[in-house]
Amino acid sequence: MNRREFAKLSLAGAGLALYGRSALAAKMPAVAFTRHHFEIDGKPAYLYSGEFDYFRVPKADWRRRMQLFKDAGGNCLATYIPWLIHEPVEGKFVFGGEDGVHDFEGFVQTAAEMGLYVIARPGPYQYSELHYNGLPGWLCTNYPELQSVDIKGKAIMAGSVSYIHPLFLEKAHRWFRQICPLIAKYTVSKGGPIAFTQLDNELAGIHIWFGSLDYNPDSMGFGKQDGRYPSYLKASYGDITELNKMYGTSYTDFAAVKPIAMPGTGTVIDVRRQKDYFEFYLSTVGEYGATLAGWMREMGIDTPLIHNSGGPKMVALYMDLVKKVGPGFMLGSDHYYNLDQNWAQNNPTPQSAIDAFCSLEALRLMGFPPTVWEMCSGSASDWPPPTAEDSKTWYRTNLALGMKGCNYYIFTGGPNPPGTGQTTDIYDYIAPIGVKNEIRPLYEVQKELGLFLKERPWLEDAEREYDCRFLFDFNMARADNYWKGKSAFQFSAGDAWEFFRKGALTSGLCASLSPAFCNLDSDEWVEDKTTPVIAVCSSSMSAAGQQRIVRFLKSGGRVLLAPVLPAYDENLRPCTILSDFLESPVIEENPGTFPRISIAGVINVLQNGASFITKTPPKGAEVLGVDEISGHAIEWSLKTGGGGEAIFLGFRWVHAMREHNRMMTALLSKWAGPLKVVSSNPNLWTSLRSWQGNSLLFVMNLWSAPMEGEILCRPAGKQAVNLGRQTLEPMSVKFWDLSKGMHS
Amino acid sequence: MNRREFAKLSLAGAGLALYGRSALAAKMPAVAFTRHHFEIDGKPAYLYSGEFDYFRVPKADWRRRMQLFKDAGGNCLATYIPWLIHEPVEGKFVFGGEDGVHDFEGFVQTAAEMGLYVIARPGPYQYSELHYNGLPGWLCTNYPELQSVDIKGKAIMAGSVSYIHPLFLEKAHRWFRQICPLIAKYTVSKGGPIAFTQLDNELAGIHIWFGSLDYNPDSMGFGKQDGRYPSYLKASYGDITELNKMYGTSYTDFAAVKPIAMPGTGTVIDVRRQKDYFEFYLSTVGEYGATLAGWMREMGIDTPLIHNSGGPKMVALYMDLVKKVGPGFMLGSDHYYNLDQNWAQNNPTPQSAIDAFCSLEALRLMGFPPTVWEMCSGSASDWPPPTAEDSKTWYRTNLALGMKGCNYYIFTGGPNPPGTGQTTDIYDYIAPIGVKNEIRPLYEVQKELGLFLKERPWLEDAEREYDCRFLFDFNMARADNYWKGKSAFQFSAGDAWEFFRKGALTSGLCASLSPAFCNLDSDEWVEDKTTPVIAVCSSSMSAAGQQRIVRFLKSGGRVLLAPVLPAYDENLRPCTILSDFLESPVIEENPGTFPRISIAGVINVLQNGASFITKTPPKGAEVLGVDEISGHAIEWSLKTGGGGEAIFLGFRWVHAMREHNRMMTALLSKWAGPLKVVSSNPNLWTSLRSWQGNSLLFVMNLWSAPMEGEILCRPAGKQAVNLGRQTLEPMSVKFWDLSKGMHS
Repeated sequence: MNRREFAKLSLAGAGLALYGRSALAAKMPAVAFTRHHFEIDGKPAYLYSGEFDYFRVPKADWRRRMQLFKDAGGNCLATYIPWLIHEPVEGKFVFGGEDGVHDFEGFVQTAAEMGLYVIARPGPYQYSELHYNGLPGWLCTNYPELQSVDIKGKAIMAGSVSYIHPLFLEKAHRWFRQICPLIAKYTVSKGGPIAFTQLDNELAGIHIWFGSLDYNPDSMGFGKQDGRYPSYLKASYGDITELNKMYGTSYTDFAAVKPIAMPGTGTVIDVRRQKDYFEFYLSTVGEYGATLAGWMREMGIDTPLIHNSGGPKMVALYMDLVKKVGPGFMLGSDHYYNLDQNWAQNNPTPQSAIDAFCSLEALRLMGFPPTVWEMCSGSASDWPPPTAEDSKTWYRTNLALGMKGCNYYIFTGGPNPPGTGQTTDIYDYIAPIGVKNEIRPLYEVQKELGLFLKERPWLEDAEREYDCRFLFDFNMARADNYWKGKSAFQFSAGDAWEFFRKGALTSGLCASLSPAFCNLDSDEWVEDKTTPVIAVCSSSMSAAGQQRIVRFLKSGGRVLLAPVLPAYDENLRPCTILSDFLESPVIEENPGTFPRISIAGVINVLQNGASFITKTPPKGAEVLGVDEISGHAIEWSLKTGGGGEAIFLGFRWVHAMREHNRMMTALLSKWAGPLKVVSSNPNLWTSLRSWQGNSLLFVMNLWSAPMEGEILCRPAGKQAVNLGRQTLEPMSVKFWDLSKGMHS
Repeated sequence: MNRREFAKLSLAGAGLALYGRSALAAKMPAVAFTRHHFEIDGKPAYLYSGEFDYFRVPKADWRRRMQLFKDAGGNCLATYIPWLIHEPVEGKFVFGGEDGVHDFEGFVQTAAEMGLYVIARPGPYQYSELHYNGLPGWLCTNYPELQSVDIKGKAIMAGSVSYIHPLFLEKAHRWFRQICPLIAKYTVSKGGPIAFTQLDNELAGIHIWFGSLDYNPDSMGFGKQDGRYPSYLKASYGDITELNKMYGTSYTDFAAVKPIAMPGTGTVIDVRRQKDYFEFYLSTVGEYGATLAGWMREMGIDTPLIHNSGGPKMVALYMDLVKKVGPGFMLGSDHYYNLDQNWAQNNPTPQSAIDAFCSLEALRLMGFPPTVWEMCSGSASDWPPPTAEDSKTWYRTNLALGMKGCNYYIFTGGPNPPGTGQTTDIYDYIAPIGVKNEIRPLYEVQKELGLFLKERPWLEDAEREYDCRFLFDFNMARADNYWKGKSAFQFSAGDAWEFFRKGALTSGLCASLSPAFCNLDSDEWVEDKTTPVIAVCSSSMSAAGQQRIVRFLKSGGRVLLAPVLPAYDENLRPCTILSDFLESPVIEENPGTFPRISIAGVINVLQNGASFITKTPPKGAEVLGVDEISGHAIEWSLKTGGGGEAIFLGFRWVHAMREHNRMMTALLSKWAGPLKVVSSNPNLWTSLRSWQGNSLLFVMNLWSAPMEGEILCRPAGKQAVNLGRQTLEPMSVKFWDLSKGMHS
């Protein structure tokens, strides 16, 4: 596998690969990550971690419960290190002691003795159902100036601070000066068990989830020549005249520019200004993360640094963070399917699987082994009940979709230190091991999976076998934060991102396609012409991305473009590279009230989104789909040289009908070759993961009813395997190990 | 059962009961409804209907499929009668013909021959995935003035008209003059099979679902002395001075008053104005319904008239309609749990069961046998798949919660007449009987239930055995349309309605309570002092309702009041009758950031909503719950004479923790006596339905994982029945018939 070897080498060159491997003094074998896997002692190994908070679990139970996790196949523990517990009074730090609550070092030493790695999570933020999300109360109440505020200057919530406020950074630095040296003492390179150190927690959540970005004037520097916001705009626009042109304003300098309230009116200018503020806000998050990372390095922490995205839908927010922290950093994501009755669904579903898939693929595209830093294990809510059965299905679904490591949140809990817990006195969390050391059914689920993974180290290297690729645009995947619904643009990027997930990708999976994602922002995918690319477009796409698609098409690639063509670049400035290449067709929203859309031979496909007509398709284009009412083209194909072909599909849908998956099949069948996996039941989704002749086929039933289907798969380099008719129990994932010659 | 006999008599007096029974010429036995049940030929019988659209099902298949439904226990069919099909060109009506598409009469005659009743649904609206929701295209395109519009005058959507626009009514009247005599010809009293006639369809949905109430100026009469809106306000306020006082305005007459846009700013005045417009809008819906009903009567339709609420959450919107149409009218509701992937959940859930329960109880309180006029049977979407297993569980859940009749939407379908269907050419709907007459698993589910009901006619009369009552305020149950979240009031009625469902009621069911609802607006519940009443309050409650609670308390009733006391009446004018009776305690929102609430002996109950403190509880009150941080009272009890007692609980939550159900148990245990049903697993909800010594116990597992629990029940007048440990498969409802001495 040349591509893979190349990647490994290039990463090593970038200083990312095999971090910590040079440790000579280590009592515990080195831990590392490459872009494909975790390694322990140089061998690929699944990182199987469990959250185990020393400040909650009674010291007397530490060894016993750690042993239980080892028995379950665990090789790592994670713990928050709550600032509020260790600095209860400003400037007075408390560590050690007999009760265990403050004995971080004792915990780390015990983990080492038990042969378990440790992920240290010193904050500053913790969340973890602690008061002020884990910040000290004195910090939040004595220093109101560091609170994050909305655009009107109103505090967002108690315990939501402005990350880059100088006073907050000063206090956080003092906390880090205490805790980071303690972490540094026990890293793997120094013979300790600490393998990873996490900076902060679910960044940006503390603002976005509670209704607003941060507009703290001191942090953002509104009105100041050298303020962050004016400086950011200056770096973007260079000259105030250019900004005035793009904003339709007449500012005399950058310091005078003020952000506008969300949501705006949907004009091009409003969307541009809101995108600017949103990206600026993310740049401050990146700056904050890089600041913390710098301190950690200065204070001697030589483990990889990690961060956990606040959920599958937030992964794309951290691009700037990843760039600013640089080598030695690894992003993962937290994957919960339910935490209380207001969540959309009580149990895992195909919709939550789509979200997890997008998250894991985005992480892979960023160059990380896809890792779930918080994998639900119990819940802060007793109701809806987090059942062992649903959890098992969720774990297997994540594994099927690419997960290479996880940390169960939580493996076991205990009493909250007095005056710190937001929920209950006992933080039991319905964890696999209860507060009285009781072993719950969820433990057996985690043990079964842990031992299964131990028996199959090759799975850590396995990748999904794919027969088509979805082009993933990180810019689009965060656009719904500032731009969705109707606007002056033909098609907003937020709506395109919804269509990507609920339309094209869902229909693709129902049509038995095996998709992998490829990164619009990278050249990696352009060379490979063997599988077609599905490019969901909004009115905006980076100039470089448009150029890549053109290059791909010119050199023999096949691309499905839907439902519009971009007319603006990533900064929302006019840019029609892709459209120009396709002879600048005029694409208009279909004005028909009741269109009748027939595409690629599939008659009357339900339009439950929108359709776009091309009155005059490009010269030489072949019309393949029309609105039968108006007769206008909806789908056309253009040969682009060297065997290349573009199909434009002016159609956006929410997957609902058999016709939608039949349309996907019809559109792609001439390009995709024999499907990797064929499932006769569109409700049974599959994933075939292979590595060096080994294969594991996953079949997922994420419904509350049993499902049946005929399953056939075609692992690379092997004969097709026909599994025949299979029945799956409600909410279950089955797998077939095709490595051992079980089927031939 | 004196209460029941009394009710029947009083209803007969009101002309509601046994409608149609006097029919002498009938070939088919009379059908009637009382407030407790349906009757066929004078005997209680479940109304088991299936949607069977003659314009879709090929005529050649009518008899065969009707027979299949009869075999399944069916006794009735329903059909839309689409205006757009029968008046394709304005003024040209098409009926009859060989193909069946236009042969309404042929269909009715065939049903009669097969011994099946018919529910006729002539619109004007149909929805049913038809173009323009079943209205003729010419009507919607040639007469733009009758479109419903938002407050800015923008049309809401194609096919959304203003119900009471004179031109729309003129056209609708012409349609009714054609179709109503045809219906009248075949009513049961005249020897035909038509037992019920539906007016319009899911009223108000066509506006509310698409983003706005109707503000059509012609319909509403803005600016006109005798316009509907000015007249409505005049009837409410009498004098413009009074309105100005309540609105803080200085209008010179009612014609000058304009509605304000939703949502407002949350001031008392804004909420009052929005409530006024919302209630006014509902009055126009009621007027429209009454107009249609009047025409139907004039044109000879002597069946009961019915209407289907657009969903469980809309039932309370139709109070005005019920009043205006008057005797001989019956409201039911449509109960779907999923129709496409954007619905909150793919399958039935405890949350959807709560919604169904509220709907069925509201219908019962309105004086109707709770009926589901559209019970999901298949789906307009192939995905998420509407499985037979989930449907079975949903049907049983509705039966457990009080359903006395239903119409499956749909039993069987077929091709849409050309140019009429919005979704697919073939309206298969994944129905129990496919378009090729294939029998699907869902048919067996419906047949099993149909035969089960036939064997147990007593079940039609059974009511839930209850051990506590929830006071239901229709005004509150529709308030979230105009008043929710933070406002100048202490606690909005929309939030109170959410707390009712997601907090108090959910915790009650998890605590093994068996609740029934009682109607705040009625005197019926005041006499019965045997079970306690839970009264969820907002800042607004009708004066009469407040008086009823006071009367109940004075005469020995026990009431739990939460989380505030009303300070305004139903018209949002100051009114503190209830508070005054409780010695006018000052109740304030708890300012503590991290309160620690202990209630009725349950320590540290999670506050995930809000809490309210009483700094000085009434003289003689006993404090039973406090915020331990501030020491202020959260819960106190006051004896009210004659054994009466009020507990005030200043606490609002979303059910999440074991502590929430333990709190409900602790609060009510001293009042409720032995529980009707005890389930040891809070995730297994139950309902015990009894009548004259017969009992059926339902146990519901609405989760995707199996559940176990110990179940014990206490049917009235019998020994307790201990069912021991029971296991329920995922997404299943079990029942035990305790009538036959299976258990003793």
